[in-house]
Amino acid sequence: MSNVAELAHAMKTSLDYLIDAKRCEIAELKRLAQTSGLVDGIGGLVHALQRERGLSNLYLASGGSRSLEALMAQHRLTDQLVQLSAQTFEGLDVEAHPAAHGARLFARVALAAQGLSVLDALRQRVLACAENTVRTSAAYARLIDALLAVVFEAADSAADPAISRLLVALFNFSQGKELAGQERATGSALFAAGQAQAEAQQRLMRLIDSQERCFLVFAEFSGESLRARWRDLQTVEGVATLERLRRVLLSTPPTQPLDVEASQSWFDACTQRLDAMRGIEVELTAELQARCRERLRAANDDLRGLQTRLARGEASLGADAFEFFADAVGGSAPPVQASAGAVGPQLERSVHELVHAQAQQLQAMSAELEAVRASLQERKLIERAKGVLMAHRQLSEEDAHSTLRRLAMDQGKRLVEVAEALLAMAPMLPTEPR
Amino acid sequence: MSNVAELAHAMKTSLDYLIDAKRCEIAELKRLAQTSGLVDGIGGLVHALQRERGLSNLYLASGGSRSLEALMAQHRLTDQLVQLSAQTFEGLDVEAHPAAHGARLFARVALAAQGLSVLDALRQRVLACAENTVRTSAAYARLIDALLAVVFEAADSAADPAISRLLVALFNFSQGKELAGQERATGSALFAAGQAQAEAQQRLMRLIDSQERCFLVFAEFSGESLRARWRDLQTVEGVATLERLRRVLLSTPPTQPLDVEASQSWFDACTQRLDAMRGIEVELTAELQARCRERLRAANDDLRGLQTRLARGEASLGADAFEFFADAVGGSAPPVQASAGAVGPQLERSVHELVHAQAQQLQAMSAELEAVRASLQERKLIERAKGVLMAHRQLSEEDAHSTLRRLAMDQGKRLVEVAEALLAMAPMLPTEPR
Repeated sequence: MSNVAELAHAMKTSLDYLIDAKRCEIAELKRLAQTSGLVDGIGGLVHALQRERGLSNLYLASGGSRSLEALMAQHRLTDQLVQLSAQTFEGLDVEAHPAAHGARLFARVALAAQGLSVLDALRQRVLACAENTVRTSAAYARLIDALLAVVFEAADSAADPAISRLLVALFNFSQGKELAGQERATGSALFAAGQAQAEAQQRLMRLIDSQERCFLVFAEFSGESLRARWRDLQTVEGVATLERLRRVLLSTPPTQPLDVEASQSWFDACTQRLDAMRGIEVELTAELQARCRERLRAANDDLRGLQTRLARGEASLGADAFEFFADAVGGSAPPVQASAGAVGPQLERSVHELVHAQAQQLQAMSAELEAVRASLQERKLIERAKGVLMAHRQLSEEDAHSTLRRLAMDQGKRLVEVAEALLAMAPMLPTEPR
Repeated sequence: MSNVAELAHAMKTSLDYLIDAKRCEIAELKRLAQTSGLVDGIGGLVHALQRERGLSNLYLASGGSRSLEALMAQHRLTDQLVQLSAQTFEGLDVEAHPAAHGARLFARVALAAQGLSVLDALRQRVLACAENTVRTSAAYARLIDALLAVVFEAADSAADPAISRLLVALFNFSQGKELAGQERATGSALFAAGQAQAEAQQRLMRLIDSQERCFLVFAEFSGESLRARWRDLQTVEGVATLERLRRVLLSTPPTQPLDVEASQSWFDACTQRLDAMRGIEVELTAELQARCRERLRAANDDLRGLQTRLARGEASLGADAFEFFADAVGGSAPPVQASAGAVGPQLERSVHELVHAQAQQLQAMSAELEAVRASLQERKLIERAKGVLMAHRQLSEEDAHSTLRRLAMDQGKRLVEVAEALLAMAPMLPTEPR
């Protein structure tokens, strides 16, 4: 036996490294389980904030004469969920989160935490009727957007295709639900103000349209049972009321009166729909968590199987060792010395096969992941185009967003198409000095 | 102060989370530094294995009459590098490697370790003249491929654009160098056999072509100084000899005699070129390591800056806190109560701005990364197409590769084009039962 063969015996074997690979996979699944808990908490908090926004709009649009009690009660309810989410945020630890994705995740959490820390200041201005409904809606939308960005990051970083699919379905569903929440707030303000108004009507139309796109992506990536529940939701009684009120809101000519009393029915119809959506969201999150547990159990079983093989000494130079080259030399393994410790049960796959199978499986997973994540591409492009505008034109984020939206409306294009066009010419834009 | 505001004071602030994000970034940079060490060791080992392959071919093609001493000496030299690399492999720890990428990295290392563990068996067969040059070359190529796959994984997982660029340049350079090594082995065997042979000639042409593509990608992603060194390398004296011998090898009609004595000049000319390439590889790796250190230093400076702010109490609700909503509500920050502890130096950016800047920077980095990684896409597509063939047609990896290559040659297409076409129809292929 030569020097290198002796070395080979002293070294960690390929089986040891397979075990390391499995440990990494388990670390990733634990991280995903932790992320699922985070996403669950955010869903509940966002739901409360959406309701708080709707009630704030009812209150403001009525000049402080309606919904004060409901709003105050909602503040208390939201506070409890803020506390819960804050705990989940604090439970995230740097060690458990892969370096680069962790950096993006914590940067998102930083923004969300900043929003939550000034929620009270916003509420005080609302209660003092020192803000209008448009600015208040925008402020809540911004906070919710920061929270959903955490969910987006989670979806974008998941490395297990099945779990990633569910996270993509969840993110899109939550995004659609948020647009439905903005629809509720906008409609509430319109009815409570008692007068149709062109800008708000256009906004409503856009909100209804964009919801549909989100729910299509959700349906593409969620399982059949949730898709069915979502279909059922379109036919319940309350939806008819909602559709009728939508028609009223959109078809009343600008400056013509709207029935102020309908504001409560609108709010209730929308709320019923949003609550039902929240039910689906909760179920989707539960499925996500179940899937994490199931994958974790399977990975732990795999790990034990590998460790058993290691304990049996299968890792040493076995009869199958030369198989590593057999593929390359285009034949079956030659009769190399049949060394001791080489014989595992005939029915099990050899370590050689295992190493190959695992490499292939990881490759297949990474291909599937790319496909799932591609569905997040639209949002990334829009975010990136906003970033370009902010850097080159010294715009605020909201101004950048409005600019893109205006360009899209003027050209009759989708937001993402305008974003793509802008990014394509980005290298030619001059940078204004900061 | 309401309940939520009190909560906000008890919670981790956005500054705390910014610090967490920075810590993740630092963890990522440390991981990259560790990976650079790994990549360095692999480069040296691959270089030794390439030389060992060339000498093995000289030895085998001469029927065991040439190069035995040089080959034995090379075995001892390679062994030292195997030992060094093994130590670096063992120094990789599961904790330091992000979960999903870690799983792929260790799966690659497992395959490489398996190859190294059977190197001795291969050598014994070579020394006994029990293998021919084609099979031996293929076996060494397979081992080297497994080692370079570790470098590929490192390049594909780096989350810092500048470092990622260098890793992509390095991987492509190493890949090109390996093709140059295969060229040396193939040409050595041809000269030593003393007769031109059509199949080997086609193989040589393919190897020369594919090298060029690799070096183009290297030049695209490396810095100017290394690009210049690479250009200079094309004009040194030895290259003229190499080109002359290439011409002899390629233009001698099949079955016509080749000058056996030229085998040593060919080996020497190729070796001179490969050694010069190794010099560039070493420099590229040094640049990579320097860049890791530099980025790590900068990130640590950032971290200290953030910690100083935290110690100064800047994280509490400051005058800029309402800025979170200011963008959304489309105006400057309203005069919210100017709370204590809000005043940081006027010249520094506010925490609010920092949170935004960091989020934007991470986004820009992730866009740049996508662009760099896209250059690794070809290899991924080919690997994936091989995987499909292996699964559907029960082929070995090498047979899958040959099939793709044959398809490409028959259709006059590039390997990656055939791979893409195959992947496009993959969903329609029937799966044979295992």
